[in-house]
Amino acid sequence: MTPDDPAAARPSLDGIFRPKSVAVIGASRKRGHLARELLHNLVSFEFEGKAFPVNPGADVVHSIKCYPTVEDVPDAVDLAVIVVPREHVLAAAEACGRKGVNGLIVISSGFREVGPAGVERERELMAIVRRHGMRMIGPNCMGVINTHPAVRLNATFAPTPPLRGSVGFLSQSGAMGVAILENARRLGLGISMFASMGNKADVSGNDLLQYWEDDPETSLVLMYLESFGNPRNFTQIARRVTRKKPVVAVKAGRTAAGAAAAASHTGALAGTDVAVDALLSQCGVLRAVTVEELFDVALALHGQPLPAGRNVALLTDAGGPAIMATDALVGCGMELAKLSEATQAALADGLSPDSSVRNPVDMLGHAGGADYARCLKIILADPGVDAVICLYVPPVMHDPVEVAHAIFDAAQASPKPVLCVLMARGEVIDAVKRRGGPSLPVYEFPESAARALAAMARYRELRDRAPGEIPAFRVDAAAAGAVMEAAARQGREHLSADEAARVLAAYGIRMVPSRLARNRDELRAAVRDLGTPVVLKISSPDIVHKTEIGGVVLDVQSAAQAEVAFDALLHRARAAKPDAVIEGVVVQRMARGGHEMIVGMTTDPSFGPLLMAGFGGIHVEVLRDVAFRVHPVTDRDAAEMVQSLRGSPLLAGVRGAAPACTEAYVEALLRVDRLVHDFVGIRELDVNPFLVAETAAECMGLDARIRIDPSAFGQPA
Amino acid sequence: MTPDDPAAARPSLDGIFRPKSVAVIGASRKRGHLARELLHNLVSFEFEGKAFPVNPGADVVHSIKCYPTVEDVPDAVDLAVIVVPREHVLAAAEACGRKGVNGLIVISSGFREVGPAGVERERELMAIVRRHGMRMIGPNCMGVINTHPAVRLNATFAPTPPLRGSVGFLSQSGAMGVAILENARRLGLGISMFASMGNKADVSGNDLLQYWEDDPETSLVLMYLESFGNPRNFTQIARRVTRKKPVVAVKAGRTAAGAAAAASHTGALAGTDVAVDALLSQCGVLRAVTVEELFDVALALHGQPLPAGRNVALLTDAGGPAIMATDALVGCGMELAKLSEATQAALADGLSPDSSVRNPVDMLGHAGGADYARCLKIILADPGVDAVICLYVPPVMHDPVEVAHAIFDAAQASPKPVLCVLMARGEVIDAVKRRGGPSLPVYEFPESAARALAAMARYRELRDRAPGEIPAFRVDAAAAGAVMEAAARQGREHLSADEAARVLAAYGIRMVPSRLARNRDELRAAVRDLGTPVVLKISSPDIVHKTEIGGVVLDVQSAAQAEVAFDALLHRARAAKPDAVIEGVVVQRMARGGHEMIVGMTTDPSFGPLLMAGFGGIHVEVLRDVAFRVHPVTDRDAAEMVQSLRGSPLLAGVRGAAPACTEAYVEALLRVDRLVHDFVGIRELDVNPFLVAETAAECMGLDARIRIDPSAFGQPA
Repeated sequence: MTPDDPAAARPSLDGIFRPKSVAVIGASRKRGHLARELLHNLVSFEFEGKAFPVNPGADVVHSIKCYPTVEDVPDAVDLAVIVVPREHVLAAAEACGRKGVNGLIVISSGFREVGPAGVERERELMAIVRRHGMRMIGPNCMGVINTHPAVRLNATFAPTPPLRGSVGFLSQSGAMGVAILENARRLGLGISMFASMGNKADVSGNDLLQYWEDDPETSLVLMYLESFGNPRNFTQIARRVTRKKPVVAVKAGRTAAGAAAAASHTGALAGTDVAVDALLSQCGVLRAVTVEELFDVALALHGQPLPAGRNVALLTDAGGPAIMATDALVGCGMELAKLSEATQAALADGLSPDSSVRNPVDMLGHAGGADYARCLKIILADPGVDAVICLYVPPVMHDPVEVAHAIFDAAQASPKPVLCVLMARGEVIDAVKRRGGPSLPVYEFPESAARALAAMARYRELRDRAPGEIPAFRVDAAAAGAVMEAAARQGREHLSADEAARVLAAYGIRMVPSRLARNRDELRAAVRDLGTPVVLKISSPDIVHKTEIGGVVLDVQSAAQAEVAFDALLHRARAAKPDAVIEGVVVQRMARGGHEMIVGMTTDPSFGPLLMAGFGGIHVEVLRDVAFRVHPVTDRDAAEMVQSLRGSPLLAGVRGAAPACTEAYVEALLRVDRLVHDFVGIRELDVNPFLVAETAAECMGLDARIRIDPSAFGQPA
Repeated sequence: MTPDDPAAARPSLDGIFRPKSVAVIGASRKRGHLARELLHNLVSFEFEGKAFPVNPGADVVHSIKCYPTVEDVPDAVDLAVIVVPREHVLAAAEACGRKGVNGLIVISSGFREVGPAGVERERELMAIVRRHGMRMIGPNCMGVINTHPAVRLNATFAPTPPLRGSVGFLSQSGAMGVAILENARRLGLGISMFASMGNKADVSGNDLLQYWEDDPETSLVLMYLESFGNPRNFTQIARRVTRKKPVVAVKAGRTAAGAAAAASHTGALAGTDVAVDALLSQCGVLRAVTVEELFDVALALHGQPLPAGRNVALLTDAGGPAIMATDALVGCGMELAKLSEATQAALADGLSPDSSVRNPVDMLGHAGGADYARCLKIILADPGVDAVICLYVPPVMHDPVEVAHAIFDAAQASPKPVLCVLMARGEVIDAVKRRGGPSLPVYEFPESAARALAAMARYRELRDRAPGEIPAFRVDAAAAGAVMEAAARQGREHLSADEAARVLAAYGIRMVPSRLARNRDELRAAVRDLGTPVVLKISSPDIVHKTEIGGVVLDVQSAAQAEVAFDALLHRARAAKPDAVIEGVVVQRMARGGHEMIVGMTTDPSFGPLLMAGFGGIHVEVLRDVAFRVHPVTDRDAAEMVQSLRGSPLLAGVRGAAPACTEAYVEALLRVDRLVHDFVGIRELDVNPFLVAETAAECMGLDARIRIDPSAFGQPA
């Protein structure tokens, strides 16, 4: 049973996030000590319940009576925060269990992140937590926050007190948590709940996502992640949550070197980045590349309605910033709205003749608050406009705070989002933010506003897209299973080309007609039956890259030529790999035309099966024009994979070429996904090339490789 | 004569940037009026010379005696700043000329940017400037700054006073100039000189670049550009300047929509973005995508030495930010340095056992200033380390300002760059910056430091790369010219395939052996001489896209087959385009194997000839795997073009394929560049496909198109 297992009915997280009493175990009088800062935060954030310092060596801490152990506390204790040296954590947790505590937050480090001894300590800690029916955040974390006025819990040692708002924030890194809380406050972004997850021994990110799913106080979820505990559960939960509220994630450890740093940091096995991208996009989660971008997007989602489309109008008092904004918008896939004639006429009436009333609307440097308010209302009323970015470079003669307020008063009534770029002194921006409150997305740079707006548009599209289905196919699982079981019985990982073709055929993935010829008689019969020209390929489970040993002969025109090629292939195979088991030669009808694509699958250590679509042949290696999705793949996912390829216009037909039958390719992807679903023992699979031709009947695989895990094999899932 | 014409000896810019006396024409008593703010800035920045307000309607302005006209000023006036309504600008400039003023700054707007009347007004203004031998910044600008202690000139109306430093900053947008000055001050980035260029009627960006080239006060040039006045001069000047000091540019108007906004803003004809990228990279100018990135890069270049290579060490007190930094570094093409055993041992001695002494070096959350100083010195001494980023998330128990200072004291003596990421409260960052001064690059986000370091590494590589040469080729310009002159005499834009092949052959660009066959006799002779198989193509100057009308027949195996194809081609051509002039049929030897590449050239309205390399066929259209350079192209440029293609590994040989003769392809690019140099009348040229095979002898063009401007034609440059 994994910590995320939904089957395991575990107590609610209310014990952690909505306690009526909190014990701080390890509370210290020393300034700068984590426990002291935590207790200080608890008290100064005005926790609505009772706080009990626990420390055998003190009588009073922070002016509050202190108890030697948690069991000495006279009242019930809902939540205990453990901040003791690592070697005392287990005893403290055990005492909490005996006391009947519901929730633990273990700040102490020295667990999984420090190697084998820590792993064992963490295992024992979890055993105590489970035995007593508690829930735990951490260990190795910086605590949690709930700003609800009935709770007012700040059980962190972060130096920055949070603002009240509707963002649920989870961070897998304590240090990033500190930075995140600081940034959120500076930007005026209020939070509903916050949790630093630490080692996620018990409560996981999935648990929190689920906890916040129906929390009316939380309208937006932000995550800083370094690993995924259980990607399948994440997929299920995130798909559901993102239909109700936006989820934006930074996933660190994007690059190979970054992932290595992640592994040494949390001891978590990091997924490859391509799988993360695929997974998040499949679930409708917005991915931010940096924490800065996370906040840019959060500010907009937190304060403004979603745009109905991608048409943006710019209202400015200076040309330069508008050009920068246009560049950034177009770079994010947004478009400049075309303003109607009526809108342009209304704008012109009251602006100086040098102004520009086409988008970007440039009122020039003397524009004041009244101009912004009037023009913004006119632009918002234009049905061709989905969103507006107001850009303002304060000249000397206007009060920028007044102008910003005019903009936001004008924007208030509109169901369309309005973002503001204020290229001004820091203190001006602060003054504007103080007045505006959380609904006021004010950016310093045009690019920040542009990418925030693009993220809003993308979220709306993700949320509103058809959910996608996993189509039902008629397959012959028994036939496919029999082939792979036979190979597994021989302890083989690699199926031969012929075996792979039979497995795929059982799942309705058409392969080019072919025959295995073990001798010259079978060869002649195969050539006769298939018709020339044919292709001959060596068939051996021990030879995976056939072309590298000259194991393929193309364009064989007659039976006589075939015999020469047959001898040559056997000779080359024996020369290249003397101990290879050689089954014979596969004779295939030679297919012409169509696009050489690939249908692939590989197994990611964290994410399980990853499906791949792309252009095949040497292009897959050099140009890497491929798309991934995490299993299971819906019909929508498969279609999106194909659309996302750079080369996809080739399939639609260029220069008068007929369009290829993309549907047949999409179906092959879905059938492979089904095959992978039915047999968890399949580790890797490549149909390469898969020929995508004009009609479905001509679409077929020309070659295939399948690698299985013999030990895991034989049990359809 | 263009304003940039280096042949035109114009007075020095000292009259503008180093005046001993300044008249402010249009000086006003009204707060918020631009002239009032400008005079206020001039006085409060403590200009070392004399300031004279000029206004016929006032006796005193800003406590200084005011004169009715500039001619009434009793002393000599070096610089006049004109801030009067547009209709009075010409008279004011004329008066300045009579007075013997050396430099003008025209703040007033209402010139080229407002349409035809403004264009005419600007032309008249320039005539006055030239007639009196003055130099002028603007019109439609926000002024200039020189912080040199002997000058102290702040002749802008920007609200932010500048800090003294060594950055030369030019902005083509006044509004961006205001924002830029504000940002620079906030980041602690001091400037030597600043200029808002406005309409660039006289003084251009090129003039300023040249002016700053040998200015000892300026160590770094930053530019915000919306257009290039004279790209050829820019290339010459920037190539020279970037060998002495870094130049970083933001070029707005990147996207098509952005460029449209640029055109309506400055009336300047914006170059296409691909040309801008090519041009800047050829000149060694770093391009920043956003103003934010410009400052990130400037902070590092301004305060730190250049790294010798791309190996970066990270020193941190928290894992999360180190992962983000690693991601960002790897994403920018940097690498994580491998620390030596000795370094790791020295680091371990004094750190807690849970720390990580491999890169990233994670000292964990309790690290203080002494730890940072000790470890940083050890890491900087490792010869495998080219640069260090220190990441610091202040925990509660240390004073972050003290830690930051320890880092910078430790970094001081090293010839390697050290950048700092401080994920802390704004006031902490401010405190650190105040102490550190301009040499202290402190960033809020790991990504900012990573991209700044990558830009430093790139600048060093650009600066130190071989300058590149334009090789001398033996060509037959007369032969090529004769072909094109003949076509031009017929008023034709498009050369026939045969004509194009002859032009290329004259420049040593080998085309596949081919013959023009005008009748069946010539056809039979051609097939006999060339040997089968051959390809037949219709030859007509009126038919450009031959394949679209079925104008190509491949793989013709015999003279008899050729005759059938010949008739078919003539028939199809007449059917498709009854009035086309048909010269006959081109018979070509059929080439096999090799990579289908393209050698292309097109003419950009601002940048002139653009050379293009890339993979040919349908790939050039769909995958757009192409690289551009602005003419003239050096051997280094051409080699970089090929290396930059995504598909370039294909040329090196993948899966055991023999490497292709890239040299022959590079030579073809250089020969086309020479052809383009010799004949300015060539507007477009495509050798597509150009077959790049194993040996130089097999590399050849299979088809070519050349479009000329008949009116411009006939004069070799």
